Amino acid sequence: MFIPGFKIDDHNDKLLKAHQRKLKMVSEEIRNAENIIEKLMQFQVAIPSWALGTGGTRFGRFSGKGEPGTLEEKIEDIGLLHALNRSSGAISLHIPWDIPRNTQSIKALAAQLGIRFDAVNSNTFQDQKDQSWSYKFGSLHHVDKKVRQQAIEHNLEVIEYGKALGSNAITVWLSDGSSFPGQLNFRKAFQNTLESFEEIYRRLPSDWKMFIEYKAFEPNFYSMTVGDWGQSLLYASKLGEKAYTLVDLGHHLPNANIEQIVSLLLMEGKLGGFHFNDSKYGDDDLTVGSINPYQLFLIFYELVEGMDERNMNHATDLGWMIDASHNVKDPLEDLLQSVEAIKIAYAQALLVDKEKLKAAQQENDVVMAQEVLQNAFRTDTRPLLTEARLRAHAAIDPLLLFRELKVRDELIRQRGSVKIATGL
Amino acid sequence: MFIPGFKIDDHNDKLLKAHQRKLKMVSEEIRNAENIIEKLMQFQVAIPSWALGTGGTRFGRFSGKGEPGTLEEKIEDIGLLHALNRSSGAISLHIPWDIPRNTQSIKALAAQLGIRFDAVNSNTFQDQKDQSWSYKFGSLHHVDKKVRQQAIEHNLEVIEYGKALGSNAITVWLSDGSSFPGQLNFRKAFQNTLESFEEIYRRLPSDWKMFIEYKAFEPNFYSMTVGDWGQSLLYASKLGEKAYTLVDLGHHLPNANIEQIVSLLLMEGKLGGFHFNDSKYGDDDLTVGSINPYQLFLIFYELVEGMDERNMNHATDLGWMIDASHNVKDPLEDLLQSVEAIKIAYAQALLVDKEKLKAAQQENDVVMAQEVLQNAFRTDTRPLLTEARLRAHAAIDPLLLFRELKVRDELIRQRGSVKIATGL
Amino acid sequence: MFIPGFKIDDHNDKLLKAHQRKLKMVSEEIRNAENIIEKLMQFQVAIPSWALGTGGTRFGRFSGKGEPGTLEEKIEDIGLLHALNRSSGAISLHIPWDIPRNTQSIKALAAQLGIRFDAVNSNTFQDQKDQSWSYKFGSLHHVDKKVRQQAIEHNLEVIEYGKALGSNAITVWLSDGSSFPGQLNFRKAFQNTLESFEEIYRRLPSDWKMFIEYKAFEPNFYSMTVGDWGQSLLYASKLGEKAYTLVDLGHHLPNANIEQIVSLLLMEGKLGGFHFNDSKYGDDDLTVGSINPYQLFLIFYELVEGMDERNMNHATDLGWMIDASHNVKDPLEDLLQSVEAIKIAYAQALLVDKEKLKAAQQENDVVMAQEVLQNAFRTDTRPLLTEARLRAHAAIDPLLLFRELKVRDELIRQRGSVKIATGL
Amino acid sequence: MFIPGFKIDDHNDKLLKAHQRKLKMVSEEIRNAENIIEKLMQFQVAIPSWALGTGGTRFGRFSGKGEPGTLEEKIEDIGLLHALNRSSGAISLHIPWDIPRNTQSIKALAAQLGIRFDAVNSNTFQDQKDQSWSYKFGSLHHVDKKVRQQAIEHNLEVIEYGKALGSNAITVWLSDGSSFPGQLNFRKAFQNTLESFEEIYRRLPSDWKMFIEYKAFEPNFYSMTVGDWGQSLLYASKLGEKAYTLVDLGHHLPNANIEQIVSLLLMEGKLGGFHFNDSKYGDDDLTVGSINPYQLFLIFYELVEGMDERNMNHATDLGWMIDASHNVKDPLEDLLQSVEAIKIAYAQALLVDKEKLKAAQQENDVVMAQEVLQNAFRTDTRPLLTEARLRAHAAIDPLLLFRELKVRDELIRQRGSVKIATGL
Repeated sequence: MFIPGFKIDDHNDKLLKAHQRKLKMVSEEIRNAENIIEKLMQFQVAIPSWALGTGGTRFGRFSGKGEPGTLEEKIEDIGLLHALNRSSGAISLHIPWDIPRNTQSIKALAAQLGIRFDAVNSNTFQDQKDQSWSYKFGSLHHVDKKVRQQAIEHNLEVIEYGKALGSNAITVWLSDGSSFPGQLNFRKAFQNTLESFEEIYRRLPSDWKMFIEYKAFEPNFYSMTVGDWGQSLLYASKLGEKAYTLVDLGHHLPNANIEQIVSLLLMEGKLGGFHFNDSKYGDDDLTVGSINPYQLFLIFYELVEGMDERNMNHATDLGWMIDASHNVKDPLEDLLQSVEAIKIAYAQALLVDKEKLKAAQQENDVVMAQEVLQNAFRTDTRPLLTEARLRAHAAIDPLLLFRELKVRDELIRQRGSVKIATGL
Repeated sequence: MFIPGFKIDDHNDKLLKAHQRKLKMVSEEIRNAENIIEKLMQFQVAIPSWALGTGGTRFGRFSGKGEPGTLEEKIEDIGLLHALNRSSGAISLHIPWDIPRNTQSIKALAAQLGIRFDAVNSNTFQDQKDQSWSYKFGSLHHVDKKVRQQAIEHNLEVIEYGKALGSNAITVWLSDGSSFPGQLNFRKAFQNTLESFEEIYRRLPSDWKMFIEYKAFEPNFYSMTVGDWGQSLLYASKLGEKAYTLVDLGHHLPNANIEQIVSLLLMEGKLGGFHFNDSKYGDDDLTVGSINPYQLFLIFYELVEGMDERNMNHATDLGWMIDASHNVKDPLEDLLQSVEAIKIAYAQALLVDKEKLKAAQQENDVVMAQEVLQNAFRTDTRPLLTEARLRAHAAIDPLLLFRELKVRDELIRQRGSVKIATGL
Repeated sequence: MFIPGFKIDDHNDKLLKAHQRKLKMVSEEIRNAENIIEKLMQFQVAIPSWALGTGGTRFGRFSGKGEPGTLEEKIEDIGLLHALNRSSGAISLHIPWDIPRNTQSIKALAAQLGIRFDAVNSNTFQDQKDQSWSYKFGSLHHVDKKVRQQAIEHNLEVIEYGKALGSNAITVWLSDGSSFPGQLNFRKAFQNTLESFEEIYRRLPSDWKMFIEYKAFEPNFYSMTVGDWGQSLLYASKLGEKAYTLVDLGHHLPNANIEQIVSLLLMEGKLGGFHFNDSKYGDDDLTVGSINPYQLFLIFYELVEGMDERNMNHATDLGWMIDASHNVKDPLEDLLQSVEAIKIAYAQALLVDKEKLKAAQQENDVVMAQEVLQNAFRTDTRPLLTEARLRAHAAIDPLLLFRELKVRDELIRQRGSVKIATGL
Repeated sequence: MFIPGFKIDDHNDKLLKAHQRKLKMVSEEIRNAENIIEKLMQFQVAIPSWALGTGGTRFGRFSGKGEPGTLEEKIEDIGLLHALNRSSGAISLHIPWDIPRNTQSIKALAAQLGIRFDAVNSNTFQDQKDQSWSYKFGSLHHVDKKVRQQAIEHNLEVIEYGKALGSNAITVWLSDGSSFPGQLNFRKAFQNTLESFEEIYRRLPSDWKMFIEYKAFEPNFYSMTVGDWGQSLLYASKLGEKAYTLVDLGHHLPNANIEQIVSLLLMEGKLGGFHFNDSKYGDDDLTVGSINPYQLFLIFYELVEGMDERNMNHATDLGWMIDASHNVKDPLEDLLQSVEAIKIAYAQALLVDKEKLKAAQQENDVVMAQEVLQNAFRTDTRPLLTEARLRAHAAIDPLLLFRELKVRDELIRQRGSVKIATGL
């Protein structure tokens, strides 16, 4: 299914007047509206190929209907999102759930929809049919060299797929860890993992980045071999300049100050990418901004401030990706909400009066520092996002148009009710 | 120090035009602006008498200057707040830190400043000079009847002070608990506490309420004898219809869903009052809305929705109080920020399209339910608060005026630098 | 596979001498060895029918081999455990994973192995094939009466199965909740659930108990409709005297004091049953005692102390059950470790010098209270467990004998490698 | 007060027979009893000078009686502990709470009691009288160079005190951080801190170590500038080989796997010292081993295993110190319990069958790995500790003798009831 431009035009025509009124209002109140709108237009968030179907928990999955069954259908879904918001112009592939069998046609399809290939993701947290060795007790950290070698080769294969598609980064998330005291020798697990990383790193194309994602717990429940930013940074530092830490918002212990981690990783030149989601308890993988949008804003402020300090390009110098699980919402609607929340936080961060904040910090004027941040956060930046969409020929209200066009019904008509997307 | 009306008028005159522009904008976008403004005008938040000085931790306290040294000065401070925002028209007294020695003059002073006496607070978590028995091992739950009796009598005395001032509720927060396994027999501690409560309850004036505050930990670090809402509700149910649970936002285990607790307590008719603050780790007692303003909004939505369901008066049927500690901010500025945050959340909650939300819930349209809530939250309600203040002859920008008038400098001039307020 | 008595005798003969030496040692040091041994012999822990296969997480499951594929095989597995430790003489059935198709033969098989039928468990957290309505948005709390009715009928059906087998309790664990703010009206969810419970309760046989299990989060990640002991107790109190709270060790917020909850529920006469496991982060469902055995002991002390106070029979007046997930261990070995850990904690609890503890509590001698508890905990009670097993004709070292007899190899030979047990 | 040797002899004579019986029993069951006893004799735990008085919380302090009022009296108290257990032969001084005015006599006193001077501790988390600049907004991280310089000089002064006494390490715990979003620029705070550390490090004697302690939160409640092991390691790595990380058990986010952190820091050669205590919620500073003794054992196992791997001397190559707060127990009794708990865990760790564990790990035999660890943990090692004490002429039961000798009564007689020790 494709959304023809005129349908977007029709939708926008109806809502234009109200939008213009709101935009005028907010533009009068803020200094840099035009600059923010431009930055918003450039900012794209990659959609993971595994997030287009309904997710679940160990207790079950309640599948939705009309889900994509093939990589082509997944790209088509992202094309729908991108047509609606012009902010989802990238896909992050998961191998082996979504192996691109026919590279040329896949690339052509993506190009046609304006979608590029973001970081590719390896998977050594599940066993695949016909695999020689099991990852039950880990992969890159495994006590047995054979298993490590198999996992290394899988990562190298993933890089090959990525190269063929034009990706230039690999994200390695390891579920390696232990569920019981005594199961692992922590040092040996670290050293085995480092050795494995080194082999992969050695074969990384010179213009690629390697993102090392950390996670505090789950699916292992006692230790994780890449468990926090400190460990990830240790690996990345030992590996070299192409290795970076990737931060997933849900991968921390309770109450962690993620904004500070982001700031310090940028200081060290070692922040590589970002997985957006939200959570209340653990790696809940909820819609971005649905639980604590203020924290999201604070993180974005550190991103913007820290990237500016290093003259980094907001849109291109970090990998931006959603990593969520849609258990009770329509996946496409959920993703529309998530992208919106990300861009609202980004706009709010751009709105912060940095000079005033800096001055307040320099004087330990804590009250004013809070005022500056909250003034940006409390400002309703949505008209700026709308304007950015409008200029990019996206929909004024993507979610509304998604529903008006009955996109899901059409997808069900085309694909049927029972198809189940690969993924979690 | 008193702020003369003309200074407020001058301040407002300067900011009026900008305010009117913003008010017009937001009023056009929302349905019930006038209704919200009226409700905001009625909504008052009590200021605790112990929160007017700089707070601290066990590691130390960095006192500020010009702090109030007497109850009269504390009331004067609240008078300043109330003059600035017309939303702080109540004081919550802590006994014995702030014993009203001369009831008549205290009442007259408060009346003159438009301040009424909210719930009075007892203190059996510290030993006072000349006290017969120590509360080192608890008070109302103590194994020794003598100690319990002393604590009961203290509570009865606090009620007497409250009666004299026109208060009609007592808040009992017990630090009683244990720091080590084995220290307590939990059942006996509960039963002793219940017995003690019963004695106090028996002597409670017929038109009074008794608020039983719970707390998960600190200052005891193994168990608390009124440790969660379940325990508080058990006590309140066993006591009778004048006994209620009081919720303090910082008194929960990590990740607790406070909104749900609020909703269920309202359902049971047992929510009595509320202590506002914010926190990231424990009972951090930070400025309201400084860490997770969305959660604050969600809590307020449950309050509004649940109170409406029972035909309760928002302004008068629950006890609203701040309970925070100002360690690095000027206490008065901190309180201005807190009251503002509370009223923003209240306004946002009033803005929720309840019918649309109910419909979404009825259809399990989770996406739309989130849209409805976030639409209210993302709306910039600050002009409504300003308008409410304006109509009540308060300042358009209380914090700005506080600084313009150099209130703290004046207080230092009057009171000196070194005075230290009683309290934590 | 059945373990003949002579194999156990052979095993015991070899280890007898060493055991007797240890038993003599410990018996000389403690007062009530004989009494503890007798109590240990009576104490049985029910094995859940779903815990005999390898468990997993949403990220995957690494199946083991030789797993039971039918209810008969599951009972056979429990028979093996029971033959080895004579402490696993009960099964807790999960419907519909383990529907007893032929009640008579199932009962006969169980009786032959010395296994009785403990509480039956309903499942409305997953959709079953051919089910009319989905539980995606809950079951007993659902906004739609039709769905609630279906879930009620399922529970009634489960009771019927239980009656046929001689069970006399039903455990209701609801995954009902919400994953996003706004999704639910908490009060209505509570009231719908209560109504549904009432219908089930009305049809509960007069000699049955209904256990209402609570859980803080997962699979819903914002709220749970039976989320904590306070909520469970509210339901159970409103329902009547046959309704009880069931505590699962992994179902709490971080740092919760579970021992206190247990004590208070016993005080209220409302503790019904117990699900044992251990965890570090959330509902990790790890082997009992593998993470915090001291907490397990403290809980057991409260159980013993609180039950004694009410003259309850330790062995029969509460439902004792394991509820764990075996992701990286052989399920049968894991269960042997769990039962051992439970009984060690029970023995330690029985070892506590209650009079001395009571005296220390009465004097606020916190140091001595800790000494009394830790003295019991630090005592090596394993010889008492061994002796209890020996007297009951179980193995001195169940795990060792399990390995010596190559039980798993034999099960693989009989059942094959690929069978996957139903369950999580 | 001094405990004469004959009183210890008398005490031991009475208990000797029972001890010998228990020792014989346990020695028969374990392989390396003699080796463990020797190691236990060498292992000394430093007592912090601030932990000899009753501690408190921000809610108050309930002082005990007979507390030491001078440094001499504190050393005397540690002398009492050391006489009783011969395991407390070191003091860790806190400056400025315990400035050694007369170095010679202090050293002589300590030498006479067999006490050496462990790491000295600086304090820039409180303001001292006559201090030029306040640490309200931090010290080594402060935005103002003047304040940083003052804090640097304080640290240098502390080193001088340490040199005079024969100490060879300084522990720097910074409370620097922020309580509100926006208060700090995290990068600048880090860089200011690093610069300050560098100035101190430059002046560190060549045979000294600098311990950088981290803490997740409190007294700052939003961010800490040395907040976790990752940050501490970053500082220590940038500083050089004399800089190390110091781990305090209570300074982590909920559920952190401290054992893994210890292992990785040892791997990096950057673990410098250890602060023992226990906690349930935050930095509760409870008696070591009172909440989760199994975790303590697991940490000790990593310490022993990791130190052995690097051929480190258990007794001398890391700084071992208690850092607890005694709010409801007699401080000296509390310290006796803490030292005992530490040494039990150490003995259990030494008892682990490392070869068997290594083999289990190599085969992913998770069940056996747990058995090996728990077998050591469940063994009652107390007779080994007793024997180590006996051989060192300490008391068989230090706590019992402390009470029999009525040490506290005697101290009260000498010092009076009302003296309050400096410290938290």
